[in-house]
Amino acid sequence: MLVLVTYDVSTETMAGKKRLRHVAKKCLSYGQRVQNSVFECNIDWSQYLNLQNELKTIINTKEDSLRFYNLGNNYSEKVIHIGAKPSIDLEGDLII
Amino acid sequence: MLVLVTYDVSTETMAGKKRLRHVAKKCLSYGQRVQNSVFECNIDWSQYLNLQNELKTIINTKEDSLRFYNLGNNYSEKVIHIGAKPSIDLEGDLII
Repeated sequence: MLVLVTYDVSTETMAGKKRLRHVAKKCLSYGQRVQNSVFECNIDWSQYLNLQNELKTIINTKEDSLRFYNLGNNYSEKVIHIGAKPSIDLEGDLII
Repeated sequence: MLVLVTYDVSTETMAGKKRLRHVAKKCLSYGQRVQNSVFECNIDWSQYLNLQNELKTIINTKEDSLRFYNLGNNYSEKVIHIGAKPSIDLEGDLII
């Protein structure tokens, strides 16, 4: 299933900048970055729960905001991209 | 239906900063801001098409990136928020 992860991490402090890097790095281990603070992860339920828990331990819940959107399995028609940097089709053929 | 709008607008130039303001303003006229460049819009199909066309005329398609995610009508279980600034439930009771 496709899960979208979006976040706002306060970068006013060094600690915030560090959290931002860790959140991005964690999301990259589950999916692809499609915009600055937007990731698309093609994962199953257990990976989804792990991702939530792992990100929860990284952020400062008083300052930072994390949102997860579950688009389910049939998502290709639910996503539209306009403009620069289109993302890779996670389920498309890998051409080597 | 709930449509998520996410965007990356290049702010290196004055023109980019202006586009960023216009994109945010346009999204606000259709829904609520839940994170810096993430909006949730509870709209029908014709509003969705209008929103896409109007945003397309604002952005620079070579530099900026716009993504739309259609979460359909039954979305309450598809969205999880962790941390600061939870959004308003667009379909919840309005307490005055």
